[in-house]
This record gives sequence, C-alpha cells and structure tokens, in this order.
Amino acid sequence: MRKHIFNAGPCKLPDSTLENVSKAVLEFGNTGQSIMEVSHRSADFQAVYEEAVALFKEVLNIPEGYSVLFLGGGASMQFCMIPFNFLKTKAAYVNTGTWSTAAIKEAKMWGEVEIVASSEADGFTYYPEFTIPSDVDYMHITSNNTIRGTEIFYDPTSPVPLICDMSSDICSRPVDVSKYAMIYGGCQKNLGPAGVTFVIIKNDFLNNVVADRMIPTMLRYKTHVDKESMYNTPPCVNIFGVKETLKWVKAMGGVEAMEKLAIERADMLYAELERSKVFRPVVKEGSRSRMNIPFLLREGYESLEKEFLDFAKTKNLVGLKGHRSVGGFRASTYNACTIEDVKALVAAMQEFEAKHI
Amino acid sequence: MRKHIFNAGPCKLPDSTLENVSKAVLEFGNTGQSIMEVSHRSADFQAVYEEAVALFKEVLNIPEGYSVLFLGGGASMQFCMIPFNFLKTKAAYVNTGTWSTAAIKEAKMWGEVEIVASSEADGFTYYPEFTIPSDVDYMHITSNNTIRGTEIFYDPTSPVPLICDMSSDICSRPVDVSKYAMIYGGCQKNLGPAGVTFVIIKNDFLNNVVADRMIPTMLRYKTHVDKESMYNTPPCVNIFGVKETLKWVKAMGGVEAMEKLAIERADMLYAELERSKVFRPVVKEGSRSRMNIPFLLREGYESLEKEFLDFAKTKNLVGLKGHRSVGGFRASTYNACTIEDVKALVAAMQEFEAKHI
Repeated sequence: MRKHIFNAGPCKLPDSTLENVSKAVLEFGNTGQSIMEVSHRSADFQAVYEEAVALFKEVLNIPEGYSVLFLGGGASMQFCMIPFNFLKTKAAYVNTGTWSTAAIKEAKMWGEVEIVASSEADGFTYYPEFTIPSDVDYMHITSNNTIRGTEIFYDPTSPVPLICDMSSDICSRPVDVSKYAMIYGGCQKNLGPAGVTFVIIKNDFLNNVVADRMIPTMLRYKTHVDKESMYNTPPCVNIFGVKETLKWVKAMGGVEAMEKLAIERADMLYAELERSKVFRPVVKEGSRSRMNIPFLLREGYESLEKEFLDFAKTKNLVGLKGHRSVGGFRASTYNACTIEDVKALVAAMQEFEAKHI
Repeated sequence: MRKHIFNAGPCKLPDSTLENVSKAVLEFGNTGQSIMEVSHRSADFQAVYEEAVALFKEVLNIPEGYSVLFLGGGASMQFCMIPFNFLKTKAAYVNTGTWSTAAIKEAKMWGEVEIVASSEADGFTYYPEFTIPSDVDYMHITSNNTIRGTEIFYDPTSPVPLICDMSSDICSRPVDVSKYAMIYGGCQKNLGPAGVTFVIIKNDFLNNVVADRMIPTMLRYKTHVDKESMYNTPPCVNIFGVKETLKWVKAMGGVEAMEKLAIERADMLYAELERSKVFRPVVKEGSRSRMNIPFLLREGYESLEKEFLDFAKTKNLVGLKGHRSVGGFRASTYNACTIEDVKALVAAMQEFEAKHI
C-alpha cells in the first residue's frame, strides 16, 4: 500500500513520474532499449534532455541568456564549485543552517567570507534579515533550509551577482530568475530522483570566473555550459525522472498551482500545530517553510517522541523523524505531497492527542 | 522488440536488472514507497547500499583493508580528484587514448606528469609496454580503452601506488585487487546505469593525501570513506541498479564466468573480422579489448559505412557507430551482451558481405 510520504529528500514523487520511469526502465519508447541502456548521445536521449531543459525554462519562466544544466555530484559539489569558479577576494553568505554552513566552509578555502546575517544564535529558528554588500564577488543565500524549516518567499535585489541554493523550494513558487546570477540545487525534492543536480546560470556570469586559477575541467561551469551537460556521461535515468516530474508540474498548472497547494498544505499543518495541546511548531512566524515543517512535543509530553513515530507508522505515515542533528519531528511537504497526505497527518496528530490528553 | 545492443555505455544490462529496477521504481520491496522516494538514510536503503558493497567485494574478491564507494560525478570527476588528493610532486601515466589523455590533463594542474608510455603515434592501436618508475607519487593506467578498443589483461606489479581506471572492464575478469592502491570507474558499462561511479581504495593509501593542500570536502576521498558514500545524498536508484547487476554477475558464476563469456564473444567477432573480405579489425593482436571492438571497412569498401549502419538497424542491431573521434564501427560487448547478440552481428556482417562481394 502506498504510504503518506513526508521524507526530506529523496521524497514523494508524482505517480506519473513513478509509472513512466518504471516503464522506460523496461523499454524506453519504442527503442527496444531501456532508458538505462540507451546512449546518452543518441537522438532519443538527446530529446529527453532537451525536453527537460525546455520544460524547466517554461515552468520557471527562465529568461533568455541563462543556461540550464543537469549534472551529477549533488548540491554539495556546487558548494565547492561556486567559490572555486567565482571567489576572487571576498564573498558574502547568509548562514541559515546546516547547508549554508557547509557552503561557507567550502568558500573559506578560496577567499574571505563575510557572513552578512546568521540566525545561529537562535538555533536557526528564523530567517534573518540581510543587506547585500556591494564590495563582494557574489552573494550566496539558501532560500529554504531543509533541516531547520525556514524559508524566504521573495527574490532579493542585489548589487552583486546573487547565487541561491534552491534545493528544496525550487518550482514551489514563481521565481524572478532575472534577479539571480545562479540558482542551483539537488533535484531529489521537487524535481525528481536523487543523483542529479540542476544549475541555472546566467551566461554573462561565466565571465566572472577567476582568470588566474587552475580549475579542474569537471569543476568549471563553462565546461558544462559549452557541452550542454554532456561533457561526460550524465545520469540519464535521473534526468528522465526530472523530465517526467516537470511534465507533471506543467500539467498541474505550473509553479503558480504548486505555490497554491504549498500554501494550503503548510497552512493546514501550521494551524494544527498552533492549536494542538501536544505538538508545537519550532520556527517563528514569518520564516516558516512551506516545504519542511519541523515540530516538537509541547512541555509535559516530551517523552512521547518514539510513541508518536510508532503510532504514525500504523497510520501509514513515513519520514516524520526530525533530522538527526535537530531531533523531534519534521514533515516535508514538497510538490508531490497531497492535501490528503497532510489531512492524514493532522488526523493522526489529533487521534494521538486525544489518547494522551 | 528488444534490440541487440552494442552501445559503449550506457549499454546493455541484464534483463533481471531492468525488471527489478522497474518494479522497485513502482514500489521498493513492501515499503509503500518507490526506490526513488525512500530516504537514503532509511534502514531499507542502507540495506541496498550494504548489499551492493558486499556483492562487489565478493565477486571481485576485494581483500580486507579496502573501502568501496559509490559516488556521483562520473569517472571524469575522479580524473581531477586523484591528483588533487595524491599528486605531491610527480605522477606517472600511461597514455592509451582519450580517457588517459583527459586524466593526464587534470593531473598536470597539480604537479609533474611523466608519460611512461604512449601509443599515440600509432593512433592508440595497441597497448604499449611500460615500466613503472619508483620516484613518483603514483602510477595511473587505463586498463581498457573504450574508444580505441585496447586492453591489458594482467595486474601490474608496481613499486608505487597503482591506480587504474577500469570503467569498461571491471568485473569482466578476475582482478588481483591487492596490486592496486585504487581502482575506479563509471558504473555504466559492466555494473549498472549511468550516474554512479565506483571507487575501490586501499585504506592505507588515504594517508598519502597531500597534507598541505586545501582540498574541497566533496573532492577528498577520506570524506566519502568516513561517511560510507553518504556524506551527501547518493544516487539511490542507480546504486540499486548496481546491486541488481552484481547479483546477476554472482548468479551467472562470477567474474570467472564473465571472463569466459567475454573471451567467447570477442573471439567470435575478431575471427569474423579476420576472415571478412569487407570488414577488418583496427587494433593489433595482443592488445585487443574484449569489451570494445572497433572495426573498419576494408580497402575498396570504405564508402559503405552508412549503408552498413542502416542495414544493421534492419537487423535490430544498435550502437555500432564508431566513436565520433574515430569513425568506422565499434561493437561494445560488455558483460550483459550475449553470445546470441554477437551471432546476430556476425550473421549481419556476412549477409552484408554477400551483397557486396
């Protein structure tokens, strides 16, 4: 039986993605080959790649002058590629949790890092306000923090190239891509299976590469832009999964429809957390992510953590354990998470409350 | 209808791999989740990862003291990671074609590179003999050259750490892993789908890392060994595909059985190329790969290239076009390629010959 999946990534994907990948693994179109067997340089696979890029550009309204890449390696690889390519002397970062911290660590290897804002002292429970300095090579933000559950919902205006890790909120709202020099992230939340990373990069920004630095070919953005993600063998079945997921986003009404659903899911769950006498939200109002909703047991009920997780399992709810670095619970409600999934979670929380109050 | 697939990678995979991946994409075991949805940190996926590692160790007889990694990024990423981690002053490389050349290019960024042997002057049509110097940080070879179709079938004894790119011959013969400090490669030939890279690394060799060099966390081998390939989200569905393929290798009789089949396939095809009045082999005897068999039209028949490729298509043979940098034809006959596939190719070549002679 299909579960109500609240995993933080890999995570729930649309049924159509699962069905169409499953079919293509047996036979891809009428090629007589699996999507795992067909050459990445064949016309058949090139069409998949081009459709994925075209759909991404369409649903996210990516303007002319930007390139889209689908690479291996994960967003963590981008943490090191960004400063390797673009940090000449100083870069600015906002520290909003685990992944920002990891990105900052890599940047420090290549130059000075100015932390323009941080919510670390408050356990990363809110998204700090920040001002973007004008004397840095680039500004880096993490628009949604998967582990802490904070998010910003606007596209900052920046005097310097703005780079954003949108791993966990990409395609969950309309984005003004023109505000960014680069947007990147792992695809394993809103776009498809794990094993492929998206990069949206302004072509002009490629000229900002540090000229006198020896950059390995695979780590150089220009390599992948010039070869349209085919410098080396790409993760083909994963890209096929992204293409299928983007088809679904479009068919569902695009990112506007995704945002409406995201708000509906998040509002329902936060309302329950505010109301509940047993559970409470963690993140401060105004910073609450629509994608990752951490919650804790209220005072007096802290000992019920394992019991709730076990109870949730009996209700076919999975993935509710909080990140190992934070504890408690977390419901990740990405694009493919349905209102029914959230209703099932709320019903379980209420049933659990009734048992214990 | 299922084709006779001679793609160079991605390439033909065992039927059981396709069937089991296809099923797991719909539902992974009884988890109520797809293999593309389940958390990489769940016990269910950890079991997949551990089985893939255990099977690899078993079929390749990997001794104690080695770690196995499954990473994203491709073998091309290893080209830069190897010198980044281990090239202090000088490394030795054998140049046997496109991929060796690419590996050498990356190494030159980090130190001196001694090319101890090269077959470049002869169009890489043979595997050159080489002596391994004792004054280098490591020695790098490419045991099988996918584009040129040359291969060595022994494990060299080396006075320095020996590193081998076995992308296209891994698990096609027994290997004395103890001879190597590191063996690596893309999985998309003999081990599974594209999008995952294997690394077999001697734990002691990790101590040879260049101590005073700033190495990005994702490019540092120790990162991945310490975290058992889970430093960041791994390519889960791809690793599942590798696990299924290794299960098949084992069930078929292991690498000894794979070698027997490889010899049978290659012998059949080379014998036909020697006999044929229309086709001829490219690679010199003694260096002929069992995995990638390039061939050309004999003198007087050179104009028939497109005609043969079209004819082959009518016989359900795919992937026979030579690499774009070489031209002509190439049949890649990896582990999952059957004797029947090769028989179909030979029959087509003979029918084509009969039409033109």
